[in-house]
Amino acid sequence: MDLWSDYNPVRITAGPGAINRLFSLHPSIITGKRILLVTSAGFTARGVTEKIEAKARKAGLKKPLLVLDGVTANPELDFLERLTGSLRSEDITGIIALGGGSALDTAKVLSVTIPSNLEMPLDMVLRQKQPYVWKNRIPVIAIPTTAGTGAEATPFATVWDRKNKTKYSVSGEMVYPVHALLDPELTLTLPPKETLYSGLDAISHALESLWNKNLTPVSEALALKALSLANEALPEVIKQPNNLHSREMMQQAALMAGLAISRTRTAIAHAISYPVTMRFGVPHGLACSFTLPGIIKHYSRPLDQSTIKTVMLETLKTIDVLRLDNEMTTYIGENNLSEYIEEMLHHDRASNYSGIMTGDDISRLILLKQ
Amino acid sequence: MDLWSDYNPVRITAGPGAINRLFSLHPSIITGKRILLVTSAGFTARGVTEKIEAKARKAGLKKPLLVLDGVTANPELDFLERLTGSLRSEDITGIIALGGGSALDTAKVLSVTIPSNLEMPLDMVLRQKQPYVWKNRIPVIAIPTTAGTGAEATPFATVWDRKNKTKYSVSGEMVYPVHALLDPELTLTLPPKETLYSGLDAISHALESLWNKNLTPVSEALALKALSLANEALPEVIKQPNNLHSREMMQQAALMAGLAISRTRTAIAHAISYPVTMRFGVPHGLACSFTLPGIIKHYSRPLDQSTIKTVMLETLKTIDVLRLDNEMTTYIGENNLSEYIEEMLHHDRASNYSGIMTGDDISRLILLKQ
Repeated sequence: MDLWSDYNPVRITAGPGAINRLFSLHPSIITGKRILLVTSAGFTARGVTEKIEAKARKAGLKKPLLVLDGVTANPELDFLERLTGSLRSEDITGIIALGGGSALDTAKVLSVTIPSNLEMPLDMVLRQKQPYVWKNRIPVIAIPTTAGTGAEATPFATVWDRKNKTKYSVSGEMVYPVHALLDPELTLTLPPKETLYSGLDAISHALESLWNKNLTPVSEALALKALSLANEALPEVIKQPNNLHSREMMQQAALMAGLAISRTRTAIAHAISYPVTMRFGVPHGLACSFTLPGIIKHYSRPLDQSTIKTVMLETLKTIDVLRLDNEMTTYIGENNLSEYIEEMLHHDRASNYSGIMTGDDISRLILLKQ
Repeated sequence: MDLWSDYNPVRITAGPGAINRLFSLHPSIITGKRILLVTSAGFTARGVTEKIEAKARKAGLKKPLLVLDGVTANPELDFLERLTGSLRSEDITGIIALGGGSALDTAKVLSVTIPSNLEMPLDMVLRQKQPYVWKNRIPVIAIPTTAGTGAEATPFATVWDRKNKTKYSVSGEMVYPVHALLDPELTLTLPPKETLYSGLDAISHALESLWNKNLTPVSEALALKALSLANEALPEVIKQPNNLHSREMMQQAALMAGLAISRTRTAIAHAISYPVTMRFGVPHGLACSFTLPGIIKHYSRPLDQSTIKTVMLETLKTIDVLRLDNEMTTYIGENNLSEYIEEMLHHDRASNYSGIMTGDDISRLILLKQ
């Protein structure tokens, strides 16, 4: 075994009512100049933004929150670049990110681009691939409202570039949120499809970190617990969306899976997902999980009996009943995914898979009609 | 469920040969004024201290290492207080701790007392119990040479006060080592008894964090993995002390158990251990584990079938064959431990146990002859 390493400095506070701790967690944020709230329009429409503004006033923030509620799914490079430019004059000293993966990723990107002093940071670092280490950050408190991405605990954020039909990752130690605040009550209103797709994203993360070349004893422990939580909770949150206990378990599963991939990064299922999302708009949680039943079989077949194998086969049962091939067909229609096999196979995440995966294997994985 | 939290900022680098990374991990340490090496006389006698000094010279350290190799088991408050006083004039900018729990704890204590500006820091904070938060530290790189304490990953250090027949804990965020460097090759020469007792210490930590009121999903994941590693590796390192793979697994088990108690602290087995070590000199690893078979039965009997119960009962098998009651008798002789029951029951760690434990229960646990 080669050397392995471990590090994750995110502070976590979790449980029902955790949101009430928001402004007492980091007193220095309250005494800062200006706090940016990054969220999506839905939260403003549902009155959540207003509630947080009221909490901020009560906590004695010097200036009203600056609200950026224009986040939409799969944040675009050019959009983030423009935001960086326009927010630089605001003297932002702290960021609160409230929402799903896209809100959290948007906040994490801005937290390093704004203080970077680069004129076009994302163009330079991502498109032009100039070597660069993000050295400063505005502290981010991440409040996930889906139970899926685990972005509250990882040092990377996905940025989409539709113009060039590709996606990038902003990553580095400065990209970790300083604090993840997990309140399961915030996930109670998540609609059925988003509950399912974000839950699948969490399961995908946990599995991807297990069949990963970067597997460590720590990431394994976290991923196994993530799967045992998700195998119990995902069917429950689909059947009973109002069950707070199951919502809490699912939120913990997503966190633990995020902590696992924060050590290993993702693998083949994510490599397959990106062209599928980019070309056909398949939601990320579905795109990175419709291949999981096939990959579980491919990976676990040669394994001797072990805890990992047992938990993977339990997870297979959880996913198989969901018939994700049918879900995919509604997005893909008669289109053929096989023209993207080379792109999938050569994506750098694909090489994290610790099994042996050929183009033919991928061809079988992405075949929707059998 | 109440709110729970998580945080552990220790960086870990692990695997055979990891020791060779020592002086490249933190370049700022090399450019610092003076590095203190805290270890025990045995390492100097076996030439390890000299090897590290040679590595330091090669890495270009400005001044030779300052070597403190007088650490003995169960570091004493007055000894540490004197060391603090005498080391303050040395302008120490980094500490390397190499050894078992006592070397690591000594280094962790000095790392906060030296820069504290308090005249008698341990007397004030521990004996006089004046409220105090350690606010500064000298960075510690911890290199464990036993596979047991997990001190390389925890924010506490045990200090003994033989004069007052008690022990204290120096704790707080400043007490975390900045880096834990785990090289299993350093544990190959550990003698049989120390291999056994430190291995038992690791198992005790993992179990104590599971039957703990402060159990979290993260600590549970870490503790379960620690036990599955230890159940496989401990019998092997006893049978084949030179098996590097088993030594590595046992070192990982100790680390994972340390990461688990860094979240929960210890519980009843440790509360029982302290008077036993203080009064009869029973090695810590044995003192905190001879009761484990009884506590496993006490705790797991009312549990429904679960992963925790399964792993605990596997651990019972690992420990039962070791006949720790006989090991204890060689230290305790005809003495009666029952006069310490009240002290054990009212130690603050005892209240972390999430089962219900009475004086009668403890009386049964510490009974050596059946």
